[in-house]
Amino acid sequence: MIRRYFQALTAHREGVALGVGDDAALLEPPAEGRVAVSCDTLVSGVHFPEDIPVEALGHRSLAVNLSDIAAVGGRPLWVLLSLTLPAYDAQWLEAFTQGFKGLADRHGVALVGGDTTRGALSVTITALGHVPPGGGLHRSGARPGDGIWVTGTLGDAALGLQRWQQRAGQPLTGDAAFLAARLFRPEPRVVAGQALLETASAAVDISDGVAVDVARLLEESGVGATLELDALPRSEGFIAEGGDLATLLHGGDDYELCFTMPPLGAEALEGLRRRLDVPITRIGTVESTPGLRGADGAGNVCALDVGGYDHFAVDP
Amino acid sequence: MIRRYFQALTAHREGVALGVGDDAALLEPPAEGRVAVSCDTLVSGVHFPEDIPVEALGHRSLAVNLSDIAAVGGRPLWVLLSLTLPAYDAQWLEAFTQGFKGLADRHGVALVGGDTTRGALSVTITALGHVPPGGGLHRSGARPGDGIWVTGTLGDAALGLQRWQQRAGQPLTGDAAFLAARLFRPEPRVVAGQALLETASAAVDISDGVAVDVARLLEESGVGATLELDALPRSEGFIAEGGDLATLLHGGDDYELCFTMPPLGAEALEGLRRRLDVPITRIGTVESTPGLRGADGAGNVCALDVGGYDHFAVDP
Repeated sequence: MIRRYFQALTAHREGVALGVGDDAALLEPPAEGRVAVSCDTLVSGVHFPEDIPVEALGHRSLAVNLSDIAAVGGRPLWVLLSLTLPAYDAQWLEAFTQGFKGLADRHGVALVGGDTTRGALSVTITALGHVPPGGGLHRSGARPGDGIWVTGTLGDAALGLQRWQQRAGQPLTGDAAFLAARLFRPEPRVVAGQALLETASAAVDISDGVAVDVARLLEESGVGATLELDALPRSEGFIAEGGDLATLLHGGDDYELCFTMPPLGAEALEGLRRRLDVPITRIGTVESTPGLRGADGAGNVCALDVGGYDHFAVDP
Repeated sequence: MIRRYFQALTAHREGVALGVGDDAALLEPPAEGRVAVSCDTLVSGVHFPEDIPVEALGHRSLAVNLSDIAAVGGRPLWVLLSLTLPAYDAQWLEAFTQGFKGLADRHGVALVGGDTTRGALSVTITALGHVPPGGGLHRSGARPGDGIWVTGTLGDAALGLQRWQQRAGQPLTGDAAFLAARLFRPEPRVVAGQALLETASAAVDISDGVAVDVARLLEESGVGATLELDALPRSEGFIAEGGDLATLLHGGDDYELCFTMPPLGAEALEGLRRRLDVPITRIGTVESTPGLRGADGAGNVCALDVGGYDHFAVDP
């Protein structure tokens, strides 16, 4: 299985002295700088619907891990894939590796190791990347006066999940299909993360909803903020499908980046936008008063619920 | 949960610029050398009995991953822990982290990241280590004439599993308790792996049984071998509990190292033994004829079955 499906994913990537198939991979990171590492598990029925297209699962599993590397400003290099499957299924593996490889190739990421085991379907990926010496975005650097920004649009994936679950056997089309694609094939903001290394004061990727992820960033930074609710960026598909404010604020699985940065002059801001491959939108301002607030267009300000998503929330 | 149980495991370890709690860890490996990385998943009921003592599971999950780092001659530095649990259980987490921490502390390994999710119990650990420039043991370096060696004793864990499953509610004592401890609390051969860096021509850790793991090493090296069956090292407990040759050859979960090396003079061999913290035993000789054979004391030689353990063996 390893030879047939996974050695094709090892690709050509710098610094792989020993790849898939031995006890451990031996890697040679760039001489200068730091190694960024993250590890995420996706469990069937928890992190993705059980009827997700398998090729999309291959893409998505890698995407959520590359998103973590992007959130610290890293350049992804290598990944390890640990796959737990109920049974050997050649067609399933073919589709999974196809989705995985499409995204891996675009980012020049090589599979260097992992594991296959039998059990309830879940996918664990460890992603390794590189950041320049002394570099790397943290959650803890936001300062009062910084703007709060996001890449792309919010809430699409959560609304896409609703439409997917409501589809009743019919294929999705139009706006609903767009939203489901945002759920199933998120685009990790790898270019943006690296472009923000010099500029952003803090960053986080939005996995559990912008409200809770911003709240985490603020807490780590020891600050608060007010979000301008009308400024939250929404896609045409989101608007057409009737997405609401709750979904914008609390819908998970966006895998956009949220970052803070000191105010930039118009020219510097234009320069930053040109280095990004995705639009960015300012959605609020960091303040010294702790807590997360929302302001509407009429100037009303209220505290935002940031319970967010907790896999173990129903337990004490 | 992360704060309460896992930040205590981050310990003090060199090179951690950003540890548990951000999107990714930022690590600074030693300037010279390579990074060894491996990733293993342990699924309940597949890789450990469902009634394993939880503290032992914490130890064992880390041990099998450190064993992979040991098998390439690495010095373990950092680990990521991805834990999938059916429900939040404070007592369970307490016991698991205790077992994990005991072994992590002894090897100076720091937890730098990971994930907790809800689902069927499984544990995925990614271990990172360091090997000197150009170094690292592979499976592919064995040459005809090399001796085949193992650390410690074989078959204990497999026999321990039998005794554990036969215990019928009674606590294990004496030799059976020793064997179960070899199953539940394997000792990764980290010191031995590093000591063998200059000497061994190839190495593998024994996870699926010495026969199949040696066969893998031989295949990667393009050679064959004959094992001296009477030489396979067995513990007093293994002998007392009636362990047989099949268990010695095919019992999994030993997590001893198997390695090959050119013949050493008596003095060099003594020097090597002194650098190890575990006895080593020569069990055979690498030959140019492919395949794995066993020779008994009377000089009879026969091919060894190396079907070994395959999680997906029952599927086509």
